[in-house]
This record gives sequence, structure tokens and C-alpha cells, in this order.
Amino acid sequence: MSIIAPSILSADFARLGEEIAEAERAGADWIHIDVMDGHFVPNLTFGPLVVEAVRPYTKLTFDTHLMIEQPERYIPAFAAAGADRITVHAEACVHLHRVIHLIREHGLPAGVALNPATPLSAVEHVLDDIDLVLVMTVNPGFGGQRFIPQTLDKIRSLSAILRQRGLDRIHIEVDGGINADTAPLVREAGANVLVAGNAVFGEKDRAAAIAALR
Amino acid sequence: MSIIAPSILSADFARLGEEIAEAERAGADWIHIDVMDGHFVPNLTFGPLVVEAVRPYTKLTFDTHLMIEQPERYIPAFAAAGADRITVHAEACVHLHRVIHLIREHGLPAGVALNPATPLSAVEHVLDDIDLVLVMTVNPGFGGQRFIPQTLDKIRSLSAILRQRGLDRIHIEVDGGINADTAPLVREAGANVLVAGNAVFGEKDRAAAIAALR
Amino acid sequence: MSIIAPSILSADFARLGEEIAEAERAGADWIHIDVMDGHFVPNLTFGPLVVEAVRPYTKLTFDTHLMIEQPERYIPAFAAAGADRITVHAEACVHLHRVIHLIREHGLPAGVALNPATPLSAVEHVLDDIDLVLVMTVNPGFGGQRFIPQTLDKIRSLSAILRQRGLDRIHIEVDGGINADTAPLVREAGANVLVAGNAVFGEKDRAAAIAALR
Amino acid sequence: MSIIAPSILSADFARLGEEIAEAERAGADWIHIDVMDGHFVPNLTFGPLVVEAVRPYTKLTFDTHLMIEQPERYIPAFAAAGADRITVHAEACVHLHRVIHLIREHGLPAGVALNPATPLSAVEHVLDDIDLVLVMTVNPGFGGQRFIPQTLDKIRSLSAILRQRGLDRIHIEVDGGINADTAPLVREAGANVLVAGNAVFGEKDRAAAIAALR
Amino acid sequence: MSIIAPSILSADFARLGEEIAEAERAGADWIHIDVMDGHFVPNLTFGPLVVEAVRPYTKLTFDTHLMIEQPERYIPAFAAAGADRITVHAEACVHLHRVIHLIREHGLPAGVALNPATPLSAVEHVLDDIDLVLVMTVNPGFGGQRFIPQTLDKIRSLSAILRQRGLDRIHIEVDGGINADTAPLVREAGANVLVAGNAVFGEKDRAAAIAALR
Amino acid sequence: MSIIAPSILSADFARLGEEIAEAERAGADWIHIDVMDGHFVPNLTFGPLVVEAVRPYTKLTFDTHLMIEQPERYIPAFAAAGADRITVHAEACVHLHRVIHLIREHGLPAGVALNPATPLSAVEHVLDDIDLVLVMTVNPGFGGQRFIPQTLDKIRSLSAILRQRGLDRIHIEVDGGINADTAPLVREAGANVLVAGNAVFGEKDRAAAIAALR
Repeated sequence: MSIIAPSILSADFARLGEEIAEAERAGADWIHIDVMDGHFVPNLTFGPLVVEAVRPYTKLTFDTHLMIEQPERYIPAFAAAGADRITVHAEACVHLHRVIHLIREHGLPAGVALNPATPLSAVEHVLDDIDLVLVMTVNPGFGGQRFIPQTLDKIRSLSAILRQRGLDRIHIEVDGGINADTAPLVREAGANVLVAGNAVFGEKDRAAAIAALR
Repeated sequence: MSIIAPSILSADFARLGEEIAEAERAGADWIHIDVMDGHFVPNLTFGPLVVEAVRPYTKLTFDTHLMIEQPERYIPAFAAAGADRITVHAEACVHLHRVIHLIREHGLPAGVALNPATPLSAVEHVLDDIDLVLVMTVNPGFGGQRFIPQTLDKIRSLSAILRQRGLDRIHIEVDGGINADTAPLVREAGANVLVAGNAVFGEKDRAAAIAALR
Repeated sequence: MSIIAPSILSADFARLGEEIAEAERAGADWIHIDVMDGHFVPNLTFGPLVVEAVRPYTKLTFDTHLMIEQPERYIPAFAAAGADRITVHAEACVHLHRVIHLIREHGLPAGVALNPATPLSAVEHVLDDIDLVLVMTVNPGFGGQRFIPQTLDKIRSLSAILRQRGLDRIHIEVDGGINADTAPLVREAGANVLVAGNAVFGEKDRAAAIAALR
Repeated sequence: MSIIAPSILSADFARLGEEIAEAERAGADWIHIDVMDGHFVPNLTFGPLVVEAVRPYTKLTFDTHLMIEQPERYIPAFAAAGADRITVHAEACVHLHRVIHLIREHGLPAGVALNPATPLSAVEHVLDDIDLVLVMTVNPGFGGQRFIPQTLDKIRSLSAILRQRGLDRIHIEVDGGINADTAPLVREAGANVLVAGNAVFGEKDRAAAIAALR
Repeated sequence: MSIIAPSILSADFARLGEEIAEAERAGADWIHIDVMDGHFVPNLTFGPLVVEAVRPYTKLTFDTHLMIEQPERYIPAFAAAGADRITVHAEACVHLHRVIHLIREHGLPAGVALNPATPLSAVEHVLDDIDLVLVMTVNPGFGGQRFIPQTLDKIRSLSAILRQRGLDRIHIEVDGGINADTAPLVREAGANVLVAGNAVFGEKDRAAAIAALR
Repeated sequence: MSIIAPSILSADFARLGEEIAEAERAGADWIHIDVMDGHFVPNLTFGPLVVEAVRPYTKLTFDTHLMIEQPERYIPAFAAAGADRITVHAEACVHLHRVIHLIREHGLPAGVALNPATPLSAVEHVLDDIDLVLVMTVNPGFGGQRFIPQTLDKIRSLSAILRQRGLDRIHIEVDGGINADTAPLVREAGANVLVAGNAVFGEKDRAAAIAALR
């Protein structure tokens, strides 16, 4: 069973509380929170105060994806704002093991995200410490991109490594270009958490949209 | 007559569209938009997509205050999102004159903001090119701060310079710790645009709050 | 058949147009253009305006090697100046997949360069997107270096990977310390594009020099 | 009597040696060398190896203008390449006094350049150590700009300060948008070294162009 | 009466506790602690753990001079280690006012240091918040430098400003090239805290050396 | 036979010369020198002048571990100060091969350190050039950490690679959380140089402490 995590990047920011509540009613499992600082990625979205504001509108897991430089500086603030899990980018962390443990010291499960070109070796020594790997299926922060099919191989390799090391408990999440066409491909390759932006919030009937992704 | 510019940093981000519409009904003149990137200042707020989302909710001027490094990278995006004027920090611009003209090339009036310790000499050679100087009356991006009374001298000096150079058309804006107690002080010193956060959005009766600031 | 690409870094910059025209007459296949910004490497060479100025002097492929930080900022300028292909360093790109596609959106084939210590895993997920890997056989930007023999193993490994994945169409280029002695070694290891600086422009008879490299 | 310093940025880079020799024959006093690194300014031009290559083509003073970050790293290389004087940007130097003395330890006179928005206070404590202030009359590194008339006031103020402190020996140089129309204005304001790009190298009859500037 | 502050940079680091105790016996008033990070200045000296280790050896004021980037990151650590006062560089602080208040929130008096080329305008808006200005009389972090005589004018101007604003309580400290020859000059110009390195720790009879400086 | 390298980070910095001499008498093999710049790691320790000061107190090898950004800038200074070997972090070096050879040009053996999350591929192409790999067993620069057991796998893999490539001459060093309990584990996994801080300098009887580690 896949976990469907609509990304609020595609929601209406003028009425974000309602949008999130509606996503919950429509059957979403997690809410994906895309934090961008305009430095790690060429887009600036929002920070902890938005997370805090919408926290009362849902009980769903806030799956917080930090596309920011030096994420260690903001982990306490996101934890305090109501994040339920935090994912950082391997490319943004010189001391990745330390950042993961900082997330866990705040009582949250930790994930690591990998840009499309980043090899799996970037996480091989921290798999025992995390519970999610986010395989980016587009380049984070750039607009108008389509699903990158070569990432299927990376998902498959990761899936094989996790089985081999007895770490199937680790979620494989995908983010970028996920829709009713690509969802079966990534699921078959081994992904079990599917982030979807326009494919959910861009649709009128969001319950149907989420159902289509499952 | 002062221009009152409630800062959306103190609004409810779960229902930002309504909040802004209500500020307009309550008598606000401008809406102050506090953009922070977590690098120039130690706080990350929001970027162009939030501005775009709330644009339809008001006709008021979006007074966009970029507390970000290398603001030139995001000026086109904020202009496209619906900013009506853009203010950049002198401390963030090696090529300040160029950034000002980039704002103007997008058809918008340009402002320059000064941190509390920054001398007025930082703007003396661009006064002919701008229509607003924002004198920060607290340190931008840090929470829980009170109005810094020494900034009154800076406002007075700026006001004198502008009169002397025949540039009274330039707005003097203040941001930080402005409330019914400090508003008369900054106004007397020469400020004519007053940004207020909690003093407006933190109050139940926002029309009364804005009236109190006038 | 090897492609011989004389590097203009060793040409006479006072008469660069003629130098390039002469390299073409002497039998060069490509012209290698070494762009250094003094930040990614400790040397500052030249930028787009030099490329544009010498463009009319030859029809040969301008093989543009960007040894610069954040190369995405200058890809449009080099494409406009007349570059025929652009290679960026894996170590300089947080979003390598995106930079490669930016090059391709400008209609040019893309390459990725690897410093001597950089593992091949840095390119494993972008091999489907590029048509050249540049294996640095010296450290870029540092003077007076000799060919690093350990790079032969890297060339061999890359060559094996490409064959195995059916990607023999991808060029393996080498740059640094290539001369009549080392050319056979790198060719045997699998390289088919040989950059040569002093070994061509440092010789009186450049046709003979190029012939010696073949 | 003004010193006319044609900027090689507007020369033909395919035959730079000849261009410089011709500028000497046409009556140029100095050759202005615009070094840009693509970081301090958004353009990358050339570095020491170009200076070295063209050094034999003229006896004129190479007036080297470093528009680069951390210029101290490249001062020895430019001195060795044949620079006759070196100017650095105040905005690029945390330890400006030290950088000036590094230039002088290489036996060269030192200058300091100021961006259009930079106040004169940036040089007030180093005037005894330098022999040239370069007042930028456009923003360095950006194309297609016109002379900024407000810089005339800065030139006048600087000129007054120098006279008052008995430092008239210090050259006041201007760079950007200088042509037959603006030359009289900057000269009258106090400038005595005029950099000209297109106004010299863009003209067929360069002797006439230089004469027009005088 | 001057305050004499021997700089431990010239002490013997193999037996630093004894050196400091001996400086106290020799009549030193403060101990000057030169913290350099190898980034703000091109030298790396030591950090909080050295301060903590030598704290028990003296009751003298630890006059802590942070020649480091982003000093706000280390102010809590130096306060905890036993610093009695902390001085930061104006050139290192985008939010200088905030950094000063961070020092004060740790219960310590705050100072601001100025590089030789930095104008006094850098501190004009924070004079009410500090109790010391450190006028660098050499460039910090560079070895083998002599006292820069032009700094006497800066000391005089600062002294005049402080008297005029009724702020004579603010110490004027000087650092660099201070010895028995230059001490009278800086004192006459208005300095009242004299940092001395070799002039104290480089002498056999340190009591005599300190007496000579008075 | 293991090499025991007490880390001076745990020694008494007020009497560092004696501490080191005592460590030698207690049977230490090397002295481990932890250089931190407050940028690569969030702690600032000390630099070359401390190394130079304590050099006369022992004949033991100074095993210098640079936890600093751009270590190439300080290699000459540490070599001059008396370092006997220098280790740099792979994560800090864009041009790792070049930095290694810079160390060797100063006549010293070179090592490369790897953070807990960094894969072994980061050193695979430089193994022929170094004589030590330092596998960090805690995150460098962060306090109060315990030995990370997952690093044992990394040590084992490295050990296997070295044997396979006939490079058993290369030392495998471990640093972080090493004490009488963990020493046997890392030794069994293949490490032969054991850095110990508190486990030596934190004990009264240092000879016994060192014996316990063996």
C-alpha cells in the first residue's frame, strides 16, 4: 500500500488551512511540505511560520522536506512548528550523520533526499539511522519539469540494497512528476511514498485524484 | 498623513487571503510583505508564490521588503507575482545602484532598507534613484525585539538630508516595534510610512488598531 | 580514431584568431577552450567574449570546458558566443542533472568533467543524458603538473561501464599532461578525445605535433 | 591634461596584440585592463595570461582594474604578467589597507575603485596610501549601460577632499559611458583619467576618437 | 591613566597559564585575547577551550577580540569560557546592532573593532550600545606589520565625536605596533587602552616593559 | 601493534608543553593535533602557533588533523610549525589530489579523513598517494558524542580494499569515542592508529590508560 503525500506547493496559499483540511478529507496519508530557501534551490517557498499556522487544520503527518542549505540551523524551528518528520538533502550536509541525529534528538524520524545525479553511496553509511530515503524524480526547485525515467533504476537499486541489508522498514519516497501514469512505474520499482503536487491540488476532485494515484 | 502598512508576518498564514482582505477593510494603506531567506536574516518566511496567491484578495499596494541575499535573483519573480514596490537591503547589495534600476526596469518604485547599525552614507549616492528609504527600527529577522530608540536620530538626519536636497518626495518608512506608543515618535522624527505587525494583526479590532497608529 | 583537441590555454593570446586558424590547418579536430574563474580553480583565464571574438576564425568544434563555480549562470553566454559543446565539472554542480539539461536546451551536447580524486559514481546517474565524460589527468587550474598515471585505471573503469551499458557513443576525453608519450596509454585505456596544450601550441610544427599525438 | 585609457574590453580579442599597438599609435596614454571573474561582477573576461601575452606589444602603462573577489590572491600574478598599476574595488576588500600595501610591495602604484552607490568614506582612511581613485560611472560588469550623471557629484566631492588634504597628486579616474559628450562633464568635475571602451575601439579612426575625448 | 592589555598572541603557548599569571604580576591591567579563525583574517589562533583553560590563572579582565566571521555563533561559548568583555569586527557583522546586544545579553560589555580602512561611520549608530571601540593600528591577522601612523587621525576623530556626544565613558583601544615609541602618540590622540604583544611578552622584564608603555 | 595517538584536545591548554611531554613519558606513540576553524566544524580550537610552541617538548610524531575549510591555505604554516604528518578532510577539498600532493611537497606523509556519512569512494582514486585514512568514528567538532558502531563496517570494507590492492602499508586511523571498550572492536575491524582524548588525558594515570588501549 502506497502512502500518498500531496505537496502543498501546489495548494492555494491564500487559504492553506482549508486546502490541507480538504486534502485530509480526500484521503491523503501525509502532507508533503516543500521548504526552499532560494539558495540550495533556485526558489524560495516558505518556512516554519507557515507550518505552524496550518498545523491545527489536520492530524496528518507533516512530511517536511528541507531544500535548504545548512538545514541544521532550522531543524529546531520546524520541529517546534509541528513537523512530524524531517528530510534533508545529502548534498546540503557536510556532516550528514550529525544532522540526522539532530532530527532524532527532536523526537522525529529522519529522511535523506538525493538529487537526480547523486549516487546512492551518499546514504550507504547512514541507512541504519534513517527511516526514509527520498529519491528526487525531478530536480528540486526548478519549475515545469517532467518525471526523469532514469531515476527508476536508482529506485530499484536502493530497493535491492534495503532488502539485502534487512532494512525494508525504510520508506522509499519519490517526488517530482508523479501522476497516474508514473505512479505504477515508481511503485513497481520499489517506492512506497508518493509525493504529488498538481496531480492532487491541481484537480477539482481530489479524492478521485488520490484514488487514481493508489 | 502617515501610510499604515500592516506586515503579514503577524497574520494568520492558514487563511492569508482573508486576513489581507480584512486589513484592507480595516483601513490599511499598504500591505507590507516580509520576505526572508534564512541567510540574510536568521528566519525563513515565504517567497513569490505566497505573494501571487494573495494578490487577488486586495487592491492595496504590496510593499515588498526583501530580506534576502543577492535580491537581484528574485526581483523578476516578485514583480511577476504582483509586488507593487520592492525594497532591498543596502547590506545585501554589492551593486546597489544596479539592483535599484533592475527594480525600476520592472516598472516598480524602488526602496532601500538600512539595518540599525548601517550609516546613511550607504544611500547617499542613490537617493535620486529611489522613492523610499526603510529605516529598520529593530534588527530584521530576529524575534521578540523592541523598538530601538536610537534610530530616531537616524530618521531625523535622513529627513533633514532629504529636505535639504529637495527630495521630500522620498518616503521614510520604519519597521519594527511600531505601535501606538512609538508611532508618534517616529512620525515626529520624519517617518511617514509605518509598518506594524502585531499592533495590527495581533489585535481583534484591526480598524481600531490602525486608527490608533494614525 | 582519436579526436585531437588543442587547448588554447597554450596559444598566443595576443593573436588568438590566427593561432586557432593555424591549429585548424595543422589538423586539429576540436579546439579545447579552458574557462577558469579563479574560484573553482586557482587561475583566471577568459570568458565568453574571447570565445565570441575567435569564433569566425575556424569551423572546428569549440569544446568548452567550464572550470567555474555555478556554471549554470554562464551557459547561455557561452552558447551565444559560439560554443559547440559544453562540459561542466561534477564538483561544481549541486544540481548536475539540471545543468546538463540546461546545456541541451541551448542545443548543445553536454559533458561532465571529473577531478582526479572524484569517483565515477558522480556521473553514473547522468550517463544517459551526456555524450562526453572528461577524465582530468592533472588537477585543473594548477600549473606545471605531470600526467597522473593512476587516472588510467579510472579511464579503464569508465570505458568498461560504458560498454556494459551500451553507451559506447559517449566520448572519453582526457586533459592534462597529454603528449606523444602518454597519448598511447590513455588511448589504450579507452580515451578517444585527447586535449593537448603545450604538446601542440608549444611546438613549432603543429601539424607534426598533432600527427605525433594520433 | 587628461590621461586617456582605452579599455581593451572593447577591442578585438582575436588580435589583441595589434589592437593595443594600434591604440598606442593612435595616442592612447594608458591601456585599461578590465579583469572580471564572474563573481564580483556578473561577467567573466580574462586574467593574467592575457596581460602577459600582450605585454610586448606596447610600452604604455597597463592600468589594471580588478573586478574580482579577494583580489589579494591574484595581485602577484598580475604584477608578474606586466601590470604597471593595479586598482581594486573597496567593496571586494575586507582588509583594504592590506591589499593596497600588497600592491605596493610588488612595486606598483595602487588604486581603489568605488561602485556608483559606494560612499567616499570607503577610501577616506587610505588616501595617503594610494595614487588613484576610480569612480565608476556605470555599474561594473553589466552591459549596455549609460553614464550615470549623479556620479558627477561624487567626483566633485572627491576632488574637493583631495585639494583640501593636499593630495591633488591622486588621480581621479572615471570608467563607464565616457565619450565626447560626457568627457567634458567629468573633466570639469575633477576627473583626469578617462577610460573609454567603445568610444575608442568601436571607432574606425581611433586617433580621432582619442583626440575627441581630450 | 592607560589600561595596558598584553596580547597573549605573543606569549608562550606551551605554558600559557604561567605566562598570564606572570603578566598579572608584572602589572598588566587586562589580558587581550586574539581569536582568529583563518577566514576573517588569514591566521588561525585559538578558540574558547584555550580561554577556559587559562581562566583560573588570573583575575584580570579577559578582553576578547574576535577576528572571526559570523561572531554571533561563538559569543555564547566565549562567555561561558570566561571572557569578561567581547569585541567584534564591524566588517564581520551584517547585523552589528544585534551582535552587540547578544554580547550584552550574556552580561558582558561589548566593543566594536575597525580595520584600518573602515570609516567611523560604521559605529556611529551603535555608540550608545557599546563601551569600547577598537581602532586597529595594523591590519589584523597579518604578521610583521608596523604601526600605521594614519590611524592617529582616526583616533582623534573618534575621540572628538565621543566628547561631543558625551560618551567619554567609551574606551578607545588600539592594537598593533604599540610600543614605547608609539604609545605616547596614540595616548595623545585619545586612546586609553593599549594592546601590546611583543612589547610585553617579547621582553624579559615584563614589569619594566609594561611600565615603559604607561 | 596499534599506534596510540592521544589527542591534545583533551589536554590542559594552560600547560600544554608539560602535558605533551608527560604523554610521551606515558608511552604515547603519536600526538594527535585537532585543528578546527569554526567553519568546517562548529568548533574553533587552535592553529599553527600552538603547534610551534609545543614542538620542543617532544620528539613524537605530530599527527595533524585539519578540520578546516580550504586546508591548502594552511598546509605550509603547519609544516613550518613542526607537523610531521597532515590529514585533510575529503569533504573540505574540491581538489583533493592536489592538496595531498601539496602536503607531500612539504616533505610530509598525507592522510585523508572521512566523516561518518562519507563513502569510501571519496578516497578510492588517491590511495596510491596517501599513507593514512582517518575513519571518523564520531562527527568531528561536535561535543559529547559516543562511538558510532556502524563505522566498524566502513573500517572493515576499507581494510579489505587495502589488502586487495596491496596497500596494507596505509594506516587506518580512528578518531572519536575510542576507549578500552571500543579499542578492541576497531582494532579487530582493521584500524591500527587509535586516537584517544579523554581516555588518556582525562585519566590520572596516563601510562595505565595508554596500556589499557593497547
